[in-house]
Amino acid sequence: MKKTFFTPGPTELYPDVKNFIQEALRDNVCSINHRSKEFMDIYKFTIDSLKQLLNIPDNYSIFFLSSATECMDRIIQNCVEEKSFHFVNGAFAERFYKTAIELNKNAEEIKVEYGQSFNFYNIEIKNSPELICITQNETSTGVAVNPENIYNLKKNNPESLLAIDIVTSAPYVNIDYTKIDCAFFSVQKGFGLPAGLGVLIVNEKCIEKAQSLKNKNHNIGSYHNFISLQENAVKYQTTETPNVLGIYLLGKVCETLNRYGIDKIRIETDEKANLLYNFFDNNKLYKPFIENIADRSKTIINIETENKQNEIKKSLSDIGIIVGSGYGKLKDSQIRIANFPMHRVEDVYRIIEVLS
Amino acid sequence: MKKTFFTPGPTELYPDVKNFIQEALRDNVCSINHRSKEFMDIYKFTIDSLKQLLNIPDNYSIFFLSSATECMDRIIQNCVEEKSFHFVNGAFAERFYKTAIELNKNAEEIKVEYGQSFNFYNIEIKNSPELICITQNETSTGVAVNPENIYNLKKNNPESLLAIDIVTSAPYVNIDYTKIDCAFFSVQKGFGLPAGLGVLIVNEKCIEKAQSLKNKNHNIGSYHNFISLQENAVKYQTTETPNVLGIYLLGKVCETLNRYGIDKIRIETDEKANLLYNFFDNNKLYKPFIENIADRSKTIINIETENKQNEIKKSLSDIGIIVGSGYGKLKDSQIRIANFPMHRVEDVYRIIEVLS
Repeated sequence: MKKTFFTPGPTELYPDVKNFIQEALRDNVCSINHRSKEFMDIYKFTIDSLKQLLNIPDNYSIFFLSSATECMDRIIQNCVEEKSFHFVNGAFAERFYKTAIELNKNAEEIKVEYGQSFNFYNIEIKNSPELICITQNETSTGVAVNPENIYNLKKNNPESLLAIDIVTSAPYVNIDYTKIDCAFFSVQKGFGLPAGLGVLIVNEKCIEKAQSLKNKNHNIGSYHNFISLQENAVKYQTTETPNVLGIYLLGKVCETLNRYGIDKIRIETDEKANLLYNFFDNNKLYKPFIENIADRSKTIINIETENKQNEIKKSLSDIGIIVGSGYGKLKDSQIRIANFPMHRVEDVYRIIEVLS
Repeated sequence: MKKTFFTPGPTELYPDVKNFIQEALRDNVCSINHRSKEFMDIYKFTIDSLKQLLNIPDNYSIFFLSSATECMDRIIQNCVEEKSFHFVNGAFAERFYKTAIELNKNAEEIKVEYGQSFNFYNIEIKNSPELICITQNETSTGVAVNPENIYNLKKNNPESLLAIDIVTSAPYVNIDYTKIDCAFFSVQKGFGLPAGLGVLIVNEKCIEKAQSLKNKNHNIGSYHNFISLQENAVKYQTTETPNVLGIYLLGKVCETLNRYGIDKIRIETDEKANLLYNFFDNNKLYKPFIENIADRSKTIINIETENKQNEIKKSLSDIGIIVGSGYGKLKDSQIRIANFPMHRVEDVYRIIEVLS
């Protein structure tokens, strides 16, 4: 039986990916020199397609790293000399905070319980951190932060750089990039691609910060410091031999999504999310983990299963649908259903039918 | 016309790779959870197959990173508090040295001209570096170092860790891993795979060194520090979502090479190298760049073209064979011919015929 993965990522491949891989093999994409014009054309096509899809301003740079986890690592290395500030409401926000600690930064956190969000009106960030980190869509809990709250954070802390984790909300989430400094995601979630590529979006302030740290003889890393990444990016190249196939496939998926229309994808994502939340809100056994509707992610839907996790997963896998377990301490009590562009509304109806 | 890439890497895909990719797509390798038993089985299979192929002792750990360049970065971060020592005879040895400088280490180098190797009998390494770095096969120049010289280095400097770059010599080069501490390569060279995966082999001394640095509150990096890599590796897992497809394909290629026999691969590599060197030694126009026969790499063959580079590349590409240009300052005057397991002797004869 054909399996369909509704997991938070790695997830179902975008349907055209198999064909794109055949095209890549036919056109020797995995054998071309990464300093050649052929590669530079692929690189440029991917950057242009991604900027169009996500409406990223021209003056923002896009760097290809190997994972979202690496993005966290490089952001901290390049944007923080001493102080970072972290909004922590789940395992991935915690990972960002822990990264800063591991890199010997003076990292502060504001922490809420899993499943909760923040009361942005009462938060005052003291001590002028160089970088504020916030997880716009927390993959472990299914809590999403309204971008407006993020823009306000930046407005109230104009001297701090602001980095956002959109790992499981891109390309759905509609970000005004002029109101943040840095964002990142990986491709095995909403872009439906094989894992092994992280995408980091930065403005010139992040690069200037890295340069100022370098000028002070501060360690900003080696081949993947922002200066080196930028020097290569402007030439449509990378410092090291990159995941060429991943970059190629990302460009092809972005082209397909652009053709389909990002507005349509956003509307469909909302519709599928509403179907699922409505169903579980009205279900006697299983309930959405996030009670506050304004905090609910549209792309990662956590469901409390009353210890019926195995039963649910089994009845869905019997019809070929694979959903995720909860994450970390929620591992055994919850399921997580992803809602990405490749997930079809017909399959959402099948999930609902089986669990009814 | 079908193209065959004799480039130093990315290079020709190993012939079975296209089928392995189809199998991976059929078996949902790109969609499975990277914490699942399915993934752990793939991981273990790849590690076991690679250890068998390269004869890596059981007590050595293998970490999956994203490139050989990342391997350099993480080795310096985790094995050097202050002092490293570098044998520099080309662009990639220089990259290793530069990595240490960028990470603010007190890095010393012994440097020889491009195309030369070292006089190992006269070298005395002073100041007890914590790490000695040597490029066993320098991809930019085609100089290879006899492993016996490397083992002697370790014997004469037992207190230093020894790291070797085997990026373009693995799996051909026969290393006695008990006589070194650390080695690394990337898969888009001798393993004929898509780029995006670096493989780092370390013994327990490297991990102990990282632990001792950590105990001193020294920055050894975040998610890819050796402690975190090791904690996950023993569970057949990775810290972040890795390049799952790359790990899967590496296992399949290692299995294929094991079945074919590494001894046979080594004999064939020698034979193909001898054919090429003999031809160019007897050619009036083009000469092997490396004069000293003992220093010649069997896997990267640099040829001085007397400014006929374009002509040579053109006549070869006319029959579908793509060779590399020289590297860095040798870019325009040389060609580089790779000689990896997937490169067939029939095609070597075709190269010779066309250039005769």
